[in-house]
Parts: sequence; C-alpha cells; structure tokens
Amino acid sequence: MMSYDPSNIFARILRGELPCKKIAEDDHTLAFEDISPQMPVHILVIPKGNYVDWSDFASNASQEEHSAFTKMIGHVANLAGINDSGYRIISNIGNDGHQEVRHLHIHVLGGAAIGPMVSQR
Amino acid sequence: MMSYDPSNIFARILRGELPCKKIAEDDHTLAFEDISPQMPVHILVIPKGNYVDWSDFASNASQEEHSAFTKMIGHVANLAGINDSGYRIISNIGNDGHQEVRHLHIHVLGGAAIGPMVSQR
Repeated sequence: MMSYDPSNIFARILRGELPCKKIAEDDHTLAFEDISPQMPVHILVIPKGNYVDWSDFASNASQEEHSAFTKMIGHVANLAGINDSGYRIISNIGNDGHQEVRHLHIHVLGGAAIGPMVSQR
Repeated sequence: MMSYDPSNIFARILRGELPCKKIAEDDHTLAFEDISPQMPVHILVIPKGNYVDWSDFASNASQEEHSAFTKMIGHVANLAGINDSGYRIISNIGNDGHQEVRHLHIHVLGGAAIGPMVSQR
C-alpha cells in the first residue's frame, strides 16, 4: 500500500480547497456526487480520516468509523431513491483495482440496471 | 427490499446444510470462495446475521457487526495476498444491481488487473 498523500483531491475536498456537490455528511463520513457519473446515480462516500484504501481503513479505523461508513452508504442510497430499485457499490483498491484517488472511496451506482460485475475486457 | 428468505444458499451454508471452501470466520462474519470465480481471486464475505442486502445491514446490524464485516474484507484480501497488488470489492443490491442471492455478500476480486468499473453493455 502507498502511504497517504494529503494532496489527493478528496483530501482537498475535505479541507474545503475544492468544491463538491455534497449529499450528506456526519462526523466521520462525507458523501458527494461523482464529477464524472457513470450511471444516473453515482455517489462517492469517503471517510473523513486519512485512509488510503479499504485495507488501511479496515486495519486502522475505529469501530465507530467503520459503522458510520457502512451506514452512510445505505443512507445515500435511500436519499437517492434507489433502495427499492437496487444499486451496486464498488471500491477499487490499488493498481489491480485501478484505484485512481488514493483516499478510500465507495462508488454507489444506480438509477438503471447495471451491466456485468466483471467485464470481459 | 424483499423480506429475508431463509432458504437462500448462503443461509444454507451458514446452517451447514451446504458446503463451502471456508477462508476465514469470526463471530459475525464468514468468508469463502465463490463457486464460480470470475477472477483468480474471488472471495465472498457475508455477515452471519440475516440481512438481505447492504441497506438492510446498514440500518439493522450493530456497530460491532459493521466493524467485523469491514475488517473481514481487509483480512481476506491479506490472506489472499492481494493487498499490495490491489483488488476490487463489489456488492450488488436488488434488481438493478443484479443481486442473485438475497443475503448480503461482498465480492472480493483480485489476482489480476480488473476491467472497467461499469461496463458499457
């Protein structure tokens, strides 16, 4: 795992240096619209703590942070009106996962039926 | 959200009525190999409690269950040796997400570079 780089764009959003279209927030978590949506609903949920990826968060965040993150994902799906129609959550970790921003984020994708879970390309 | 159907295959695995290739387990969580792997590493992580999907789990599980689930995902990635190379985690919820088994599960996928997050089909 790479060490945390505080100049990543989500860290800059958390510090208020870059804008975001905020959807929800609590003490430990922020949710906002993805700037390049790949589905009609495409929300990002991030922890406020400096965690590179899921492995870092799993090992180093508190039980309270784990729970807040879990709940926020369900909360934004509810706010977006996709709880009943369904959705997909994805987190990319490291190079094989093509993680672009090295601050943990979960993609919440919905608003239409989603394609195969693993593409053949 | 559909109500929980205790005849789903993951409930049957949890009751010992069906076998699985177990990878790890704790009080709240079980991890085992996907029976139809779509990547060199394809592990499923499920809570032991009866939660239909992420929204159900987020709303109704305890902070301790949320944390155990979060940690188990990182733990199995570590056991599988994909922490450094990277991986992707996916959970499908409801019809638009093409959720096949209506017991919450996270796919942990790795062992090679993964394709686009949202396929164009």
